[in-house]
Amino acid sequence: MVYIGIVGYGTVGSGVYEVLRTNRESIARRAGEEIAVKRICDLREFPNDPASDLITHEYNDLIEDEEIQIIVETMGGTKPAYAFVKSALLAGKSVCTSNKELVAEYGSELIELAKERNLNFFFEASVGGGIPIIRPLNQALTADEIMEIRGILNGTTNYILTKMSREGSDYASALKEAQEMGYAERNPEADVEGFDACRKIAILTSLAYGMQVDYQDIDTEGITKITKQDMDYAKALDAAVKLIGESRREQGKVYARVAPLLIDSSHPLYSVNDVFNAIFVKGNVLGDVMFYGRGAGKLPTASAVVADVVDAVKHRGTHVVTLWSSKKLILGDSDEAMNRFFVRVPKNQKEKAIEAFGNVSEVISDKVRGEFAFITEKMKEGSFKEKTKDLDVINRIRVGF
Amino acid sequence: MVYIGIVGYGTVGSGVYEVLRTNRESIARRAGEEIAVKRICDLREFPNDPASDLITHEYNDLIEDEEIQIIVETMGGTKPAYAFVKSALLAGKSVCTSNKELVAEYGSELIELAKERNLNFFFEASVGGGIPIIRPLNQALTADEIMEIRGILNGTTNYILTKMSREGSDYASALKEAQEMGYAERNPEADVEGFDACRKIAILTSLAYGMQVDYQDIDTEGITKITKQDMDYAKALDAAVKLIGESRREQGKVYARVAPLLIDSSHPLYSVNDVFNAIFVKGNVLGDVMFYGRGAGKLPTASAVVADVVDAVKHRGTHVVTLWSSKKLILGDSDEAMNRFFVRVPKNQKEKAIEAFGNVSEVISDKVRGEFAFITEKMKEGSFKEKTKDLDVINRIRVGF
Repeated sequence: MVYIGIVGYGTVGSGVYEVLRTNRESIARRAGEEIAVKRICDLREFPNDPASDLITHEYNDLIEDEEIQIIVETMGGTKPAYAFVKSALLAGKSVCTSNKELVAEYGSELIELAKERNLNFFFEASVGGGIPIIRPLNQALTADEIMEIRGILNGTTNYILTKMSREGSDYASALKEAQEMGYAERNPEADVEGFDACRKIAILTSLAYGMQVDYQDIDTEGITKITKQDMDYAKALDAAVKLIGESRREQGKVYARVAPLLIDSSHPLYSVNDVFNAIFVKGNVLGDVMFYGRGAGKLPTASAVVADVVDAVKHRGTHVVTLWSSKKLILGDSDEAMNRFFVRVPKNQKEKAIEAFGNVSEVISDKVRGEFAFITEKMKEGSFKEKTKDLDVINRIRVGF
Repeated sequence: MVYIGIVGYGTVGSGVYEVLRTNRESIARRAGEEIAVKRICDLREFPNDPASDLITHEYNDLIEDEEIQIIVETMGGTKPAYAFVKSALLAGKSVCTSNKELVAEYGSELIELAKERNLNFFFEASVGGGIPIIRPLNQALTADEIMEIRGILNGTTNYILTKMSREGSDYASALKEAQEMGYAERNPEADVEGFDACRKIAILTSLAYGMQVDYQDIDTEGITKITKQDMDYAKALDAAVKLIGESRREQGKVYARVAPLLIDSSHPLYSVNDVFNAIFVKGNVLGDVMFYGRGAGKLPTASAVVADVVDAVKHRGTHVVTLWSSKKLILGDSDEAMNRFFVRVPKNQKEKAIEAFGNVSEVISDKVRGEFAFITEKMKEGSFKEKTKDLDVINRIRVGF
């Protein structure tokens, strides 16, 4: 029997408890041993919960319990999660977490700490919820140089954009519906402004290149400016607007960004709708692969955490190598990144736009009037900013094809 | 430096050599050590190949070379691949293979042999080419009970079906084009009759349930009877015809089959086109995940083999557990499997069909005349056969929605 402790008995934490109970036998078969939750640390009481007897308010009850070999951290945030996780590793316990803020900020340090002690720090659930992506990046795509990652990494925004596209609703009402459905929080900023996706693409990029990518360095743009009209144009282009966290290697530099992107219908990300997430990876020999699934939700996320626990049990006494050094990866200057842009200006600026951009292809939607919309050639971000300086741009979206 | 030997210098074998050279540095970083090919066994000569000096016609030159720690087997077929792989393991060398026939037939035995000797027998490339699916099934989806696997496992047939659907061509001319493009072999039987997909779903099902699934037990139906008219009806249904290898658990039994399946446009497999493969997996807590990528081709397949080699290097002296016992999994009687069916009969049998099936929903395509086409309710395969006994069925396709 292997005992574990859970810190943070919210949605994911209680999901971990439930998954371990529901699939007790098959999990024991996979792990080679039965796994049981011994203590759960949370500040709240859960009087009617099946796990109510296991609750403690004292984190030290878990740390000091020598029978507990693995800590599951599902609190979220960095304070006090970072201190808790660190003390767990120092106490000789492996840690499995779903906490993207913690991993994005302290991943390389906590991996190093685990390595020094022959322990493991696993974080499959921190990106893509239930989708296996961390482990494949670390252990399956090892023959490749990663050229590009493009991820739909946030279910809330994907739900809103899908809604807007399908029903022609505007951003505000799609957000409202997402909130009513429980897919968006009352304060939706972390999702809709792209901050959540930003931490996730920072983690994936760190793993792809084995170095520290600071999420603060990643240009991040949310979906709040996307309108009905943008969706109409996207349809005219046989494309969809998706919030994409991406990083790509070009001329020896890695460029990373979170922003809405027009994805054409032949791209596998195009048909990833509703709350689903998907991560598209291009390797230099492998070509294109994509991982698709539920990027959030109690049980899918808990499934990924429990898979980490199984791996931690199988590797007791052995550190599973994750290449993620604390050395900082200096990202390419975002003004130097090459992109094509979809641009909307008032009709009376057509000549001016063509003068500025030269060769453009016009985009016509029979649902939008009084505008001139076009797609530019590939150009540097900086050059695009320069060219639009004197234009009254209604909106502009990067083009992923 | 870790030395490996390659047996079978065909498309995949030479791809392995190429990938190891192209990504030498990043692979060394991932493996923790440089990896070099020392000998290559093939009956042919390759006078102008960069690896020509490494070629030997004697397999024993690899087996007896104590510096060679890992054998890559990329010959295909079971004779002599089985004897070669077995002797490699007996000689203390781990084996990485892309050979689905070998794995489907001898997988559990070779894993056992590797386990006894603290070696590894890896076979990521045997299913889905470059798509990571074996390793995720073994190591990432460990918290779940697998309820369903549905895979587009054969690129040749997916190319043909995509062609037929897009261009309205018939089976024979789509096959001919696939042959001209080099996607189908001159004798296409193994692909178009579903034998290739059958071995692959046998492997995936064995891994999902940890027991031996004999591919001979799996009902297998190819795509040779699919017609233009079927494609027209599929479009009328907003669906696509895909050759699907599937296994699902129902009432404690596992049912497996390879057959064309109507996939509706909301299913993630729907938009998997051309030579791409994808494997859709449903876990009882995880929900739906899908793995997508290039299911064949020199470099993608070689990328998966090399990822296995990296793993074998990282795990020298440690057997990585793969649950696949030699105990045979008795599949559910295929006549008992529940399905809905799309059925076409001559128009004059409409009454008779309705009499036999009761409640059906008619399917109308404005491109097909003189027929009555319908979808049945969910029923046992055996019962379906019984009900169609007296009907002149033009074609029938199982319905995946």
